[in-house]
Amino acid sequence: MNAVPTPKTPLVTMIGGGQLARMTHQAAIALGQTLRVLAVTPDDPAAQVTPDVVIGSHTDLDALRRAAEGADAFTFDHEHVPTDLLEKLIAEGVNVAPPPQALVHAQDKLVMRRKLADIGAPIPRYAEVSAAAEIDAFAGGRPVVVKTARGGYDGRGVLIANDLGEARDFASRNLAAGIPVLVEEQVAMRRELAALVARSPFGQGAAWPVVETVQRDGICVEVVAPAPGLDDEIASAAEQLALRLAAELGVVGVLAVELFETADGALVVNELAMRPHNSGHWTMDGARTSQFEQHLRAVLDYPLGDTSPIAPVTVMANVIGGPDKPAMEMDERLHHLFGRIPDAKVHLYGKEQRPGRKIGHINIVGDDVATLRERAGRAAHWLSHAEWTDGWDGH
Amino acid sequence: MNAVPTPKTPLVTMIGGGQLARMTHQAAIALGQTLRVLAVTPDDPAAQVTPDVVIGSHTDLDALRRAAEGADAFTFDHEHVPTDLLEKLIAEGVNVAPPPQALVHAQDKLVMRRKLADIGAPIPRYAEVSAAAEIDAFAGGRPVVVKTARGGYDGRGVLIANDLGEARDFASRNLAAGIPVLVEEQVAMRRELAALVARSPFGQGAAWPVVETVQRDGICVEVVAPAPGLDDEIASAAEQLALRLAAELGVVGVLAVELFETADGALVVNELAMRPHNSGHWTMDGARTSQFEQHLRAVLDYPLGDTSPIAPVTVMANVIGGPDKPAMEMDERLHHLFGRIPDAKVHLYGKEQRPGRKIGHINIVGDDVATLRERAGRAAHWLSHAEWTDGWDGH
Repeated sequence: MNAVPTPKTPLVTMIGGGQLARMTHQAAIALGQTLRVLAVTPDDPAAQVTPDVVIGSHTDLDALRRAAEGADAFTFDHEHVPTDLLEKLIAEGVNVAPPPQALVHAQDKLVMRRKLADIGAPIPRYAEVSAAAEIDAFAGGRPVVVKTARGGYDGRGVLIANDLGEARDFASRNLAAGIPVLVEEQVAMRRELAALVARSPFGQGAAWPVVETVQRDGICVEVVAPAPGLDDEIASAAEQLALRLAAELGVVGVLAVELFETADGALVVNELAMRPHNSGHWTMDGARTSQFEQHLRAVLDYPLGDTSPIAPVTVMANVIGGPDKPAMEMDERLHHLFGRIPDAKVHLYGKEQRPGRKIGHINIVGDDVATLRERAGRAAHWLSHAEWTDGWDGH
Repeated sequence: MNAVPTPKTPLVTMIGGGQLARMTHQAAIALGQTLRVLAVTPDDPAAQVTPDVVIGSHTDLDALRRAAEGADAFTFDHEHVPTDLLEKLIAEGVNVAPPPQALVHAQDKLVMRRKLADIGAPIPRYAEVSAAAEIDAFAGGRPVVVKTARGGYDGRGVLIANDLGEARDFASRNLAAGIPVLVEEQVAMRRELAALVARSPFGQGAAWPVVETVQRDGICVEVVAPAPGLDDEIASAAEQLALRLAAELGVVGVLAVELFETADGALVVNELAMRPHNSGHWTMDGARTSQFEQHLRAVLDYPLGDTSPIAPVTVMANVIGGPDKPAMEMDERLHHLFGRIPDAKVHLYGKEQRPGRKIGHINIVGDDVATLRERAGRAAHWLSHAEWTDGWDGH
């Protein structure tokens, strides 16, 4: 904030007490900073591990004000703070990073699509839907995706339609509830990529190597860094695109650009996130500067850190709750995991296990993509299911 | 503890709220654990960053009991808890790691020397001093070091005597105060090394590569990992020695063995520490498993982590307060540092700067020892003095 003298050590407020705030706290400790989190409950992943916690809702202006008090920067572990509240905070002198004019592109898919179309960024063919029947004309017989403009991540609010009836139903339901809907072509793709960058208010940008992301049921399950076999020109184009978007949208902090690599080797922007992102968890153990440290550096307008990888390959596998909770406690699962895979880097979020819930992730670094994918996937599945994917039964 | 069922996530108590506890908290977060610290004040480095803080003295049994309540393991960020209090806690069911029978060897240099002599470990010639005049006979005209048996680290309680008069004065003063004193030969050495290992109650041991440590005024200022140009056989002998000492003394957790490499290429044990140690700070950014994570794994009897370095060389430089506090705030110093050295990994302890006080450290990883030493040293000196050692004045 401008009016007060520079404190000896910066105070950063993060809205949201989830795992992203939890891991940002680890980075803040190293930099001698204080991370304050606005958490819904004292049991939120970040609230468990930092002493500076404000309990409240991200839609409550008074809670946001309490969290902002004395902060050098005010940032987010999710995209859900209404921009009108952020505008009020800015008017009161709060340094909101990323600013609402940028953040809205991660909140509203229609706003994002229009902006990207304006600036000539590659996007799928899309249209706003004002009546479900419009979908048939848009589709012209080809497969479509329907999405709500706002709300939902990890696949929520998105329907990859099997047929037009399903698409129309999704649109009707949401439109009837007053939720804007858009329809997009289904992109014929090789795979999904993510380009992760950071940008500071000064205008400095820094890009990590482009990664491949693997989704299952709309949830990211695995990230391979760098994306295996990616053409150098495409990799470079993806990094440049993400840096350009960060600059054009006025992003401050980390920007994740989720991309499709199309069947003919082009890039198409799928989604944007303006915060540390699951596709960047590999940087904690695989890059000179983690996305969490970089986010803090960016929102405080420090020069950005070196984004070089420390090894040829890093694989990140999410630990995702299965249908049943294993009888074996997590503590015992950890014992067995460490016994079999002593180089697995474990990151747990302090969350109760539930089906489909991300409760942690594993990073493993090395040389060989196939070996690392098998090992990281085996480690993550063991932690969530207490089952070895290779059939080993010695525990 | 034995009587209660295993909690879902382990609780580790660490006695002492200094930087070692602060950095252990970072590792505990990743492993989904809770670190509770016993701190002297709420401003202690660790107390600033973890919510589970007990305020009290490490010599107050009630404070120790409050800190121990419900903990799966009870460990230390310093060596100063009286062993009789630890014996009481053990009798009450507390899992003290390392146990007092081991810890006493890091508290009392006479006990340590006697034990090491017993088991045939290489040590300097030494003698207990009951009257100052005995020093002359021990010296036989050669240079000596006099030490108090208890108290002091970072060179306190140790006098590398310039002459026998100085040595006798040191001994007389301490003996008069009832403090036991020992005298040792001054070892003709090439340099100082440190062998860092961890040991679990199960008996597993793991060694990091042996490092070179550089002291100034009795304070560690720099660590180079691995020790440059160290003969493979000596390196291996040092690791084996440290693992053997950990086993013979019954250490649980990290053990740092400070060594002299003598002029004729032999090893001599100087000091022991049973906790994460300054000579292991490089592992935070330079090894697959940091000493802080390893200490937690060891005290909880998890299998130990991979100790491989991630790069050919890591250099750690301590940030040590100079005679004057720079006019430039630490926050601004950080800006300039990140601008010049974007790959410097900064670890600040949240401590007020004072002359001779360790307030942080820098790690830099790479290939070339001379380059890394210059860069890490330049970064650390800049952070403490706001002066560039290479004369650069562009900030």
